[in-house]
Amino acid sequence: MNSLRPTIGVFDSGFGGLTVLRELLSLAPSARYVYLGDTARLPYGSKSRETIARYALSSAQFLREQGADLLVVACNTATALALEEIQAAMPIPVVGVIGPGARAAAATPSHPEVLVLATAATTQSGAYTRALNALGIKATEKACPLLVPLVEEGWLDQPLYKSVTLDVLRIYLIEALAQAPTADTLLLGCTHYPLLKPLIETTLQTLRHPMKVIDSANATAQAVAALLPAATAAGEPPVCEFYATDSVEKFQRLGSVFLGQQLNEVKLLDLGG
Amino acid sequence: MNSLRPTIGVFDSGFGGLTVLRELLSLAPSARYVYLGDTARLPYGSKSRETIARYALSSAQFLREQGADLLVVACNTATALALEEIQAAMPIPVVGVIGPGARAAAATPSHPEVLVLATAATTQSGAYTRALNALGIKATEKACPLLVPLVEEGWLDQPLYKSVTLDVLRIYLIEALAQAPTADTLLLGCTHYPLLKPLIETTLQTLRHPMKVIDSANATAQAVAALLPAATAAGEPPVCEFYATDSVEKFQRLGSVFLGQQLNEVKLLDLGG
Repeated sequence: MNSLRPTIGVFDSGFGGLTVLRELLSLAPSARYVYLGDTARLPYGSKSRETIARYALSSAQFLREQGADLLVVACNTATALALEEIQAAMPIPVVGVIGPGARAAAATPSHPEVLVLATAATTQSGAYTRALNALGIKATEKACPLLVPLVEEGWLDQPLYKSVTLDVLRIYLIEALAQAPTADTLLLGCTHYPLLKPLIETTLQTLRHPMKVIDSANATAQAVAALLPAATAAGEPPVCEFYATDSVEKFQRLGSVFLGQQLNEVKLLDLGG
Repeated sequence: MNSLRPTIGVFDSGFGGLTVLRELLSLAPSARYVYLGDTARLPYGSKSRETIARYALSSAQFLREQGADLLVVACNTATALALEEIQAAMPIPVVGVIGPGARAAAATPSHPEVLVLATAATTQSGAYTRALNALGIKATEKACPLLVPLVEEGWLDQPLYKSVTLDVLRIYLIEALAQAPTADTLLLGCTHYPLLKPLIETTLQTLRHPMKVIDSANATAQAVAALLPAATAAGEPPVCEFYATDSVEKFQRLGSVFLGQQLNEVKLLDLGG
């Protein structure tokens, strides 16, 4: 690893992983980042394990060719279904999003009981439940299929739109808490959900059910930063390169919402079918 | 074509095309129907024209092998991007969903001005605008990305859930009518949307903007029925076979909502990657 400016490769099936990159830019601004959104082949959620592993390996290989010293699988589905395969195939450290989120939830005060909000594909994989149970923690997973499209529509700020998103969150949380009434920790198990965190906290207040909210994007970035040389925490401004496998324009437009700042150039990449 | 019981092949990337089949079962109950939902490869919307044409051709070929005398492409994206290619490759009549919907809108009283609600992929293709303009009709398309997940979540009936869907419809229709304030005809350009028709009509009433609502599933079924022998309109009860390329259980569960009746057996089919 280049100890002055290591290269971190980050990939996701789309834009969501940019919330992980946003946290990384804050924790380790002096690294070089290469981000790949495999937008042509999203969503990974409806595909088989073999197909997802093949896609993820081709993305990992591309990022390695760009000089990555460390790889972040910033995609819940790819982490759930292919992390071990990517780790086995790559000669560099590979960090997924599920383990760090689960460990951050486990690190809360004694005997947390965790409610995981995620996409249908992630909940069906059961990966969060396995990871949390392995840490001795009781977990309930709740699929929330409307949240990703609400985030991608940007219905987060203006009152008319925000009220719909708040209603949807209220319904999902009421349903989830009916299944897990004593849960005290809420784990956001999708890289789109950090953008919903303020609205989720508002909803928990109106439901009078206080919970510690853990953001797996932040937890993942913390886990990555712990592996990096201390020099990356300050110094040079970050260098970021962005690649997408489809619609560079859409990636640039939507991506800036997830990253919280304008994306400079996005390059189109063809990884094949 | 078997004049007593012709076989109609119907395919879609998922469940939506079952709304077309539901209309067909009502108009031509005596035909034999073979339905294929290519659920393993959905959504088609984010894929290239070449990939969609390849997928659609393999589905069409499979249905032909099952004895189809006529093929219905009950998928807006496949119709928009690959109808001509399928028609050129198949020795049987092939009917898509866009032409019948556009013609039904054109058949309304003098000089209709049409607003089309559809998915982002369909509106980006511009296929409805081209079809309507070719008929001399002014058209505005509005992408409504939240409607498919709302229908798939089944948020249509119970008051708490229905009110969210009504709020979303209200927002989309206000936005759309701001672009097309004099539109008098609303074309539902997605095979999921017939399930929303009652809620859309309620919303138009509360907006005090009456419009003729045209359902492309119904229009397509009318166009297909016109090609069938008269004997199919009555007589034997229908025979239906269902194939899906992924999760037969999910297909059976969700599919019954779209079809408006229980699906009998659903067979798993592997069409390859």
